[in-house]
Amino acid sequence: MAETNRARVVLDGLASRKSVRVFEDKDIDEETRAEILEAAFQAPTAGNQQLYSIIDVRAQAVKERLAELCDHQGFIAKAPMVLVFLADCEKWRVAYAEAGIESRPAGKGDVLLAFADAAIAAQNAVTAAWALGVGSCYIGDVLERHEAMVELLKLPRQAMPAVMVVFGYPTERQRRRPKPLRMPAEQVVMRDSYRALTGEDARAMLASRVGERGFDEWVRAFHARKYASDFAAEMNRSVAAYLENFHE
Amino acid sequence: MAETNRARVVLDGLASRKSVRVFEDKDIDEETRAEILEAAFQAPTAGNQQLYSIIDVRAQAVKERLAELCDHQGFIAKAPMVLVFLADCEKWRVAYAEAGIESRPAGKGDVLLAFADAAIAAQNAVTAAWALGVGSCYIGDVLERHEAMVELLKLPRQAMPAVMVVFGYPTERQRRRPKPLRMPAEQVVMRDSYRALTGEDARAMLASRVGERGFDEWVRAFHARKYASDFAAEMNRSVAAYLENFHE
Repeated sequence: MAETNRARVVLDGLASRKSVRVFEDKDIDEETRAEILEAAFQAPTAGNQQLYSIIDVRAQAVKERLAELCDHQGFIAKAPMVLVFLADCEKWRVAYAEAGIESRPAGKGDVLLAFADAAIAAQNAVTAAWALGVGSCYIGDVLERHEAMVELLKLPRQAMPAVMVVFGYPTERQRRRPKPLRMPAEQVVMRDSYRALTGEDARAMLASRVGERGFDEWVRAFHARKYASDFAAEMNRSVAAYLENFHE
Repeated sequence: MAETNRARVVLDGLASRKSVRVFEDKDIDEETRAEILEAAFQAPTAGNQQLYSIIDVRAQAVKERLAELCDHQGFIAKAPMVLVFLADCEKWRVAYAEAGIESRPAGKGDVLLAFADAAIAAQNAVTAAWALGVGSCYIGDVLERHEAMVELLKLPRQAMPAVMVVFGYPTERQRRRPKPLRMPAEQVVMRDSYRALTGEDARAMLASRVGERGFDEWVRAFHARKYASDFAAEMNRSVAAYLENFHE
């Protein structure tokens, strides 16, 4: 296969991948699961430290509780594969202790570096899954409900969920669903330093989405549904509680 | 091309990708840059909000200052393409304001959700670049030097760097460099809930790395060089300062 063809296969895969929230009633076999996880491991990671752990949720009761804790999204419990990627500042502490070092507690920088590691690994899993015909959906709500999540997943003090991804084979309808358009590049990419967006930029960045309702009405409804929602408030509370466990 | 071949091309790309820190003296043309950025845009993003902005650093003076601020890593200034992915809680505030809404300040949950968005987009850029023959390296040190970084990149109060990636064509030597091994899956993946790692796990997870020096000596040197370093302390200080700008 020529190099340009190979490149095109990868670029097409990245471009065509879209979120899938309805799955066929079909399990994901162990070989496919292993390939998805292997892609995660092969992701870039700060200093080759793999500052994440992955909880592979198989127990139906745990899936159902996660569905409940993540803003009552029932489809989570129906996914054949559920992975929680943790920013894990605990694992290296164990290695340091084993070598006789009492290491300092992890700080807010350590946990954000680990958070990036976890998200980067997750995205490799998502890309690999899509190539294997397996759809996926990120669940941002995994950042909510700090106390209940710690109890359910038995999290140590210096580990926190970064992202959760659910996987499954897309239904025919999901396969046909058009991928939502992204913002124009002009409102996403800035040259050399931050460029403050104007009201006109805001209109341009959402032009493909507001439809017949018009900018003002669409943005107000979106704001009420998302940014001013109870779950957003809960997410902010919960993340602040996690971050309390990390020093400066 | 058969489906299985296409899948294999993607999986091979993810598995073979490794960090590249030495680049050929060869520019990346505009078409290739646009394909790398397009892959970033096509990444999954919470609620299709693209909660990130990308600073495309072209000015040599800015690259040089970034190299200095990121723990004096000179190769950053030699990279033909440098992207800083920001967790940007400012852009939607502008849209809300344009629709007449005075929105609440972003919280620590909002910024971590944006941080994940930024890292996920960056990893798509990295994957696309590799397919196009372009190597890359994440620079975790972009989290350091809060005040100087805000000044250099003119960052607004509610945006912060999540990851920086430098891109360029790998030298022959870099192409031949073996990719460092990852930890065994057993120390990375946990079933249903967190499994506290033991000292034995720590030894197993680093077995492929410690070499002739042995576990204790290798881990102590690594700890001193990384976790107990000045730059780690600076990263923790700097990230805490960024996070101060985000409410609960």
